Amino acid sequence: MSADDILDRARAAAQECGLDALVLTSPENVAYVSGAAPPSQRTVRSRIAAALIPCSGPTALVAVALEEDVVRAQSRLDQLTLYREFEQHPVDVVADRLRHLDVADGRIGTEEAYMSVAERRRLKGALPRASLTAVDDLLSTLRQIKTPAEVARIREIGRAAQRIARDSLADAGAGTTERELAHAIQEAYGAAGGDHLTMLVVGSGPRSAAVNAPPTNRALEPGDIVRIDIIGTKGNYYSDVARTAVVGAPTGEQQRVYDLLSEVHHSMLSELAPGVSTSDVYGRYRAAMEAAGLPPYHFVGHGLGISLHEEPFCRAQGSITLQPGMVLCIEPLTLLDGRFGIQLEDEVLITDTGCELITEDTGLLRI
Amino acid sequence: MSADDILDRARAAAQECGLDALVLTSPENVAYVSGAAPPSQRTVRSRIAAALIPCSGPTALVAVALEEDVVRAQSRLDQLTLYREFEQHPVDVVADRLRHLDVADGRIGTEEAYMSVAERRRLKGALPRASLTAVDDLLSTLRQIKTPAEVARIREIGRAAQRIARDSLADAGAGTTERELAHAIQEAYGAAGGDHLTMLVVGSGPRSAAVNAPPTNRALEPGDIVRIDIIGTKGNYYSDVARTAVVGAPTGEQQRVYDLLSEVHHSMLSELAPGVSTSDVYGRYRAAMEAAGLPPYHFVGHGLGISLHEEPFCRAQGSITLQPGMVLCIEPLTLLDGRFGIQLEDEVLITDTGCELITEDTGLLRI
Repeated sequence: MSADDILDRARAAAQECGLDALVLTSPENVAYVSGAAPPSQRTVRSRIAAALIPCSGPTALVAVALEEDVVRAQSRLDQLTLYREFEQHPVDVVADRLRHLDVADGRIGTEEAYMSVAERRRLKGALPRASLTAVDDLLSTLRQIKTPAEVARIREIGRAAQRIARDSLADAGAGTTERELAHAIQEAYGAAGGDHLTMLVVGSGPRSAAVNAPPTNRALEPGDIVRIDIIGTKGNYYSDVARTAVVGAPTGEQQRVYDLLSEVHHSMLSELAPGVSTSDVYGRYRAAMEAAGLPPYHFVGHGLGISLHEEPFCRAQGSITLQPGMVLCIEPLTLLDGRFGIQLEDEVLITDTGCELITEDTGLLRI
Repeated sequence: MSADDILDRARAAAQECGLDALVLTSPENVAYVSGAAPPSQRTVRSRIAAALIPCSGPTALVAVALEEDVVRAQSRLDQLTLYREFEQHPVDVVADRLRHLDVADGRIGTEEAYMSVAERRRLKGALPRASLTAVDDLLSTLRQIKTPAEVARIREIGRAAQRIARDSLADAGAGTTERELAHAIQEAYGAAGGDHLTMLVVGSGPRSAAVNAPPTNRALEPGDIVRIDIIGTKGNYYSDVARTAVVGAPTGEQQRVYDLLSEVHHSMLSELAPGVSTSDVYGRYRAAMEAAGLPPYHFVGHGLGISLHEEPFCRAQGSITLQPGMVLCIEPLTLLDGRFGIQLEDEVLITDTGCELITEDTGLLRI
């Protein structure tokens, strides 16, 4: 499949739902169908971008004019419609472009979990004959199955994150601060072509038991657990790889907890295949944690792609049946409040017959 | 004024509009009134946070349980209501808490430019007798006037950004790559206590003329203009300081354009005072650019605080009269397409009698 398969699939799915066009406005779905991510879209929320995908005929990206160079280079849609900040309201420009594309009176799918009340009101006002329908679930379902081009991107930055985790931990030791370790990771991530780290966890000692622990000036001490989670993007696609290390030799308890998580990790990985239910994957993890008297986290896996957390989740609720082309993070985690936290996280591609490990944890790192 | 003045002012403003409570859900306004910024709120959008501010009686923050440690340490609201991801819908938890706070049947102000269509529908369904009103403008107006505590935070990270810009440029030269320069800035920003750089511009040579130029592997060459813009946060408040340097000696044209921008910059700064209209500030910049035959940017200043770009903007449209306590970035900029771009950007506090320069550009840096 080529990158255009995403567009073909999105159009076919929209048509099947009786829609005339999709109007996608979340940064994730704009990037998904158009390839474009205007740099200031997230920082300056009023700089709305929209991908307009009629079921037939040309497609268009609407973006703020000051990002023209970037979006023109990135977008694979047929047309680019730019608006001048403050002078034109982006929703009016979207409505106008939909008229040009001859779908202004049709059934239009929008993202109701993203589109704001004010945007929707303005769009309805500008297109009184259009009927607006939610397509959040439709896009979520589409995005679960990655194209080979998407898998290649995820694989590249995921493997880089794995290498960076190993190398940066190997260079650290007692006396290194969390922030120094974070800088080494940031520098290597940039050198690997990563855009930026959206959420980097570097938690040492008792801080390793905090879920989202940003790096501090705390210096590593002998006996500390160090938990890192490298969450960032390259070309719109996420990496999410976590590793756990110990400064010096682990205590018996640290090693025991790690071994238990590692065992359940590899047992989950060995079972992943088309047809498997995600709640069964979670059940295996939770049972192992409960048998050991350790606190389970409320999910043990999640889809990965243009967003960090997407379906399929491996959790107790809302089970999904695995299919080829899904990419998941499997991340058994236990947080012993105020003491230490251990996490192993690998990225996995579901194949026709089982799964391919994009990354692979190789044991409790000693540093 | 203490930090609590924000709450007092928000309540008074809500009461004046005939509201019974505010329900704020954007990351900016949650942080503004509560002080809390759940780390994963922006990355995982379904982890909704909400600040519930009745006009009288206790206030409450609603956040996802897995961020408990962080939000408990940060929030200044009276109550903390946590929900379990996947098991409870955050909007239902908000509705339930509003019932406890005895405002479920009242007039409730929400952010319609942020709240999604789906969230609004769910909230209306859960609170059929409530009447929901937009308070986007009310919050925007409140946030324009900073408390002394807010000014102190902005001053601290703004001055740090200025120092980092100067030092990192001084350490760079021909052969340094944009990425190396960016890493030096990132490291120093972290050491200064900054959270992260949300949008760092490092554009050299022709790339200095691109508006939002992220760093690349391009190495600086003699004669290059280097434009950097340090946009990041510390404790929820933004820094936004831009500087321009030249590698070696500037050409006559480069120096001429810089001098022209510098002259209009200082002339704008000398005029800033209560009572001045922001469109007049923009008019001065545009006239100078047009007289010199240089392309003006579509605004020359913006408010700065918990968001990067907020009112008051200095632009042609929608003029605002300056008042004491406003913090603005003044940033004359000209981008000569494919050749070079020059920008000076300083942060300014409007005082009772004029303005205080939080940062101050001191000339075209030679590196």
